[in-house]
Amino acid sequence: MPKHHWILTDVARGIWQDSFRCSARDGLGPVAGSTDWSISKRTLRGGLSDGVDVIDVDNGCLSVSILPSRGMGLWRGTCDGMELGWKSPVAQPVNPAFVNAHDRGGLGWLNGFNEWLCRCGLAFNGPPGTDIITRDDGSQIRNEVTLHGRIANLPAHHVEVDVDSDGPGTLAVTGVVDETSMFGSCLRLRSTVRTEVGSNRLMIVDQITNLAGAPAELELLYHTNMGPPFLEAGARFVAPAHDVSPRDNHSGDDVSRYDSYLGPTPGYVEQCYFFDLIADVTGQTVALLRNAAGDKGVSLHFAKKELPGFTLWKCTQAEADGYVTGLEPGTNYPNFKTVERKHGRVVSIAPGATHEVRLEIAIHSSAKMVAVVETKIAEMQRGRPPRLHDDPQAKYL
Amino acid sequence: MPKHHWILTDVARGIWQDSFRCSARDGLGPVAGSTDWSISKRTLRGGLSDGVDVIDVDNGCLSVSILPSRGMGLWRGTCDGMELGWKSPVAQPVNPAFVNAHDRGGLGWLNGFNEWLCRCGLAFNGPPGTDIITRDDGSQIRNEVTLHGRIANLPAHHVEVDVDSDGPGTLAVTGVVDETSMFGSCLRLRSTVRTEVGSNRLMIVDQITNLAGAPAELELLYHTNMGPPFLEAGARFVAPAHDVSPRDNHSGDDVSRYDSYLGPTPGYVEQCYFFDLIADVTGQTVALLRNAAGDKGVSLHFAKKELPGFTLWKCTQAEADGYVTGLEPGTNYPNFKTVERKHGRVVSIAPGATHEVRLEIAIHSSAKMVAVVETKIAEMQRGRPPRLHDDPQAKYL
Amino acid sequence: MPKHHWILTDVARGIWQDSFRCSARDGLGPVAGSTDWSISKRTLRGGLSDGVDVIDVDNGCLSVSILPSRGMGLWRGTCDGMELGWKSPVAQPVNPAFVNAHDRGGLGWLNGFNEWLCRCGLAFNGPPGTDIITRDDGSQIRNEVTLHGRIANLPAHHVEVDVDSDGPGTLAVTGVVDETSMFGSCLRLRSTVRTEVGSNRLMIVDQITNLAGAPAELELLYHTNMGPPFLEAGARFVAPAHDVSPRDNHSGDDVSRYDSYLGPTPGYVEQCYFFDLIADVTGQTVALLRNAAGDKGVSLHFAKKELPGFTLWKCTQAEADGYVTGLEPGTNYPNFKTVERKHGRVVSIAPGATHEVRLEIAIHSSAKMVAVVETKIAEMQRGRPPRLHDDPQAKYL
Repeated sequence: MPKHHWILTDVARGIWQDSFRCSARDGLGPVAGSTDWSISKRTLRGGLSDGVDVIDVDNGCLSVSILPSRGMGLWRGTCDGMELGWKSPVAQPVNPAFVNAHDRGGLGWLNGFNEWLCRCGLAFNGPPGTDIITRDDGSQIRNEVTLHGRIANLPAHHVEVDVDSDGPGTLAVTGVVDETSMFGSCLRLRSTVRTEVGSNRLMIVDQITNLAGAPAELELLYHTNMGPPFLEAGARFVAPAHDVSPRDNHSGDDVSRYDSYLGPTPGYVEQCYFFDLIADVTGQTVALLRNAAGDKGVSLHFAKKELPGFTLWKCTQAEADGYVTGLEPGTNYPNFKTVERKHGRVVSIAPGATHEVRLEIAIHSSAKMVAVVETKIAEMQRGRPPRLHDDPQAKYL
Repeated sequence: MPKHHWILTDVARGIWQDSFRCSARDGLGPVAGSTDWSISKRTLRGGLSDGVDVIDVDNGCLSVSILPSRGMGLWRGTCDGMELGWKSPVAQPVNPAFVNAHDRGGLGWLNGFNEWLCRCGLAFNGPPGTDIITRDDGSQIRNEVTLHGRIANLPAHHVEVDVDSDGPGTLAVTGVVDETSMFGSCLRLRSTVRTEVGSNRLMIVDQITNLAGAPAELELLYHTNMGPPFLEAGARFVAPAHDVSPRDNHSGDDVSRYDSYLGPTPGYVEQCYFFDLIADVTGQTVALLRNAAGDKGVSLHFAKKELPGFTLWKCTQAEADGYVTGLEPGTNYPNFKTVERKHGRVVSIAPGATHEVRLEIAIHSSAKMVAVVETKIAEMQRGRPPRLHDDPQAKYL
Repeated sequence: MPKHHWILTDVARGIWQDSFRCSARDGLGPVAGSTDWSISKRTLRGGLSDGVDVIDVDNGCLSVSILPSRGMGLWRGTCDGMELGWKSPVAQPVNPAFVNAHDRGGLGWLNGFNEWLCRCGLAFNGPPGTDIITRDDGSQIRNEVTLHGRIANLPAHHVEVDVDSDGPGTLAVTGVVDETSMFGSCLRLRSTVRTEVGSNRLMIVDQITNLAGAPAELELLYHTNMGPPFLEAGARFVAPAHDVSPRDNHSGDDVSRYDSYLGPTPGYVEQCYFFDLIADVTGQTVALLRNAAGDKGVSLHFAKKELPGFTLWKCTQAEADGYVTGLEPGTNYPNFKTVERKHGRVVSIAPGATHEVRLEIAIHSSAKMVAVVETKIAEMQRGRPPRLHDDPQAKYL
């Protein structure tokens, strides 16, 4: 039985599994020699979480809880006993039915924000406002834009699970989420989370298809959010960079310390930096958060061509308010959409075409593992430190 | 057992049937000699459809899926192997919990729009804006109005099913939907969809009751939306009309072609026409959409007194964007409510009173059946073609 | 078995009881000698109520239906055969997923308003608008405020039930509701409704904890809403008061009749009065609504220090529109938040600290019982009638 395939949800075909579990103990046997793996589905009940589906994938080393109900975001996980995620003031996953994106002047997205990884997009991300497009004839299209877009608050209408015991042994969960509207942007996300049994990493493969009859704009940013044990006083951010630019003057004041973290600091005001990362000869780049001792780390791996923008969000406020840092690779920077369009950083997808983006996340539980990534980054940096800007740069304004 | 009656939902009395099915095979036997009929209920799970109830009525010839969760709209159907409905970019029925009417500057209704028939109303329909009523003393009441009103995104709190094997044999589903608020408009829709076994038609009987202690305004428009096989290049709209007026100049440019359709046309910009229809001696009127060959058609039948407004919406854009035309009888035209009030086209219902509207839909699967309707319309037109206006007319402004 | 404890809901721990019932007949035996008590849970299905949990507590004399899905509000009850509550145009409890607080220009709260008791708060209550706080440095924080805040439309994520057969025999239901957001106010309500077996009263104990890392503002008002048989033509409001001030000029016109009620009056425009109540030597105060004959009454009992504001809302409009009066003790008056802040009536809670408020409601089913409360109030008033103001007073503006 090398390959197993299950469909858990398919609205169009009326398929729905109230619960699901597959594992070695469920008669499927070992995968890649391990019996210590499972994939299961449950539904949260009560509070703002009522009706939220959770798919727990455990490869024996790394486990992650996927939220089909919230745009295939990754709620949280564990790896080698370390927690993956952070403690948001919004304690549990929120059913999108309870999220009003227009609350708080277009900041309502924050009412449901607590994932380890959530997507910002697909038609737009960044701050709220009115996105005005002026046509050649001078007429204008006005689109109301809310913080970080719709995708994190849209549930998957199709979910499937794959187990492949061939080769390294792979566990995969795929969800399909439509961000569509009549007379509006019509984009489909097909997201697969894949992990090899016993490994310390997972791969996200996202395919975004333009379902519409005209070219579509895409903005996609991966808001990965890290707390302890990776984030702590003295933790460091490490990435190969050409230059580092502050989002605002407040961030610019501390640009020289962009890569180091404070402990929980009541009253801390968030700082944000935009990066032009260095890619290696294969086009890949990497971003690492490591703890103070350098024996715990989490790193992101992706092709710079697919995710040319990278934003670092530092939010080391009091633990009660959400002590967190965001490592955010994106097709764009999370500026207001008109800014990104002006600088040519909004992806265009032809009618019916599909745009693919891959993001790998690896967890490092020893000084040796962290050092491997740091060494790789140092090699990419080639001894030339990134240029640090004190002021917001024109290319981000 | 001539008459059967079931209550599927009644919130006030705590009645709820998770699923339901009645048919000849369920021991009920033939109706009007036919065993080929059924009524069943199911609930969609997953995606934006999670929790949407669907009641499928099949009379052996015509079947229709009713959505109690969406204001008793008709999602889609089939008749003699022909599909009834259209392909919206919003693929599946959307639970109103996920629809924010205030999204997109008051156009959020479009995020859930995909029915074959949905109602626009009840307190208002037409475009969004601020409806300002100036009282005699000069003071003003301001109401925020969103596109096409609330009713299509309100679930029925009472649902019942009736099967009557007497006479022609009738299947009926009734739902009660409250559009109420403290200090707001308080209207109740009691809608019955009725069809005779083996027939090609269904009758909608809607009773709107003013639950409030003061007179209420009503705007009710039936947004019936047709795609292939009725809509295609060369398809035609046929209705007896005194005159035809464009909604805007863009529509006016093509008023001479108001009754003919293009195939799917990427970049097509919707056009809209307002009709003053001709009624026959019994007060009835009719509107027909027929395919190019004239061997498939769908027609609406109603009393002009009950539905004096008629709007034709032509939206022959790319299939991916929603290739569709709307035949829209209404108590009013879908202009901004102040326009309709100014022209005396808003219905007033006395406290406790009920306003009834009936709409019949018939499906025609042969040239002969289509010709019968066309002949009837030609007779009503009496050889005098409708007056076509190039410009928007004052009575619609 | 003196004490029983059940957890019905706990999202964080994955605890959920689809239904629940405990009573003497369920093997628990008598409490305080009575077998005529029960606590049970059910979930409403259909309409706007779909998914609303109801916990019915019956002490043998008084029963009340608690709504964990709506911020632990009290939907309705009965006592000695008398109905507790009122008839809102919104007939059944509304799942918050269907309530858009931003509807109707920020008045969307009214679309779900029908409880006997609901809370207004926690971060703000009163009318909608933009709450602007000017910092010392001249910079401003802008918060969009909607009518009466979020708490009544937030579901409890933890619910527990306690039965204590010791002493008087106590039934209690506790719910925990989080009103939190990233970068927003983070308040937790832990509310217990407690009643003694066979008694005519219930006690609400609310603990509001500031979960954030900085001081938090709290506005909490108990919107208790009474209809017949307590409210009727000739019914009277009785409370010990230093002074009574109208909210507006329209209310001021009738300030001399502030304490008497009309029967259902179509076209009646609501009137509102602010009270400075008199407390007794223990700090307690009381407010009573009694029917015309003085043989039925409902009274609120609370510490003036905990709930220094008291508002009387008179809304004796037609029954169809909601014939109701509100007795509303609060930490503040339901003015726009900036007004309350200016007058020092917004509670501040230190980080991690908890603010407790207790409110007792008693039902009186005889002239004797009503007279006891009236006598107590007369003693507190000490023969000096309250000062009645014709005009809105500066301390409320």
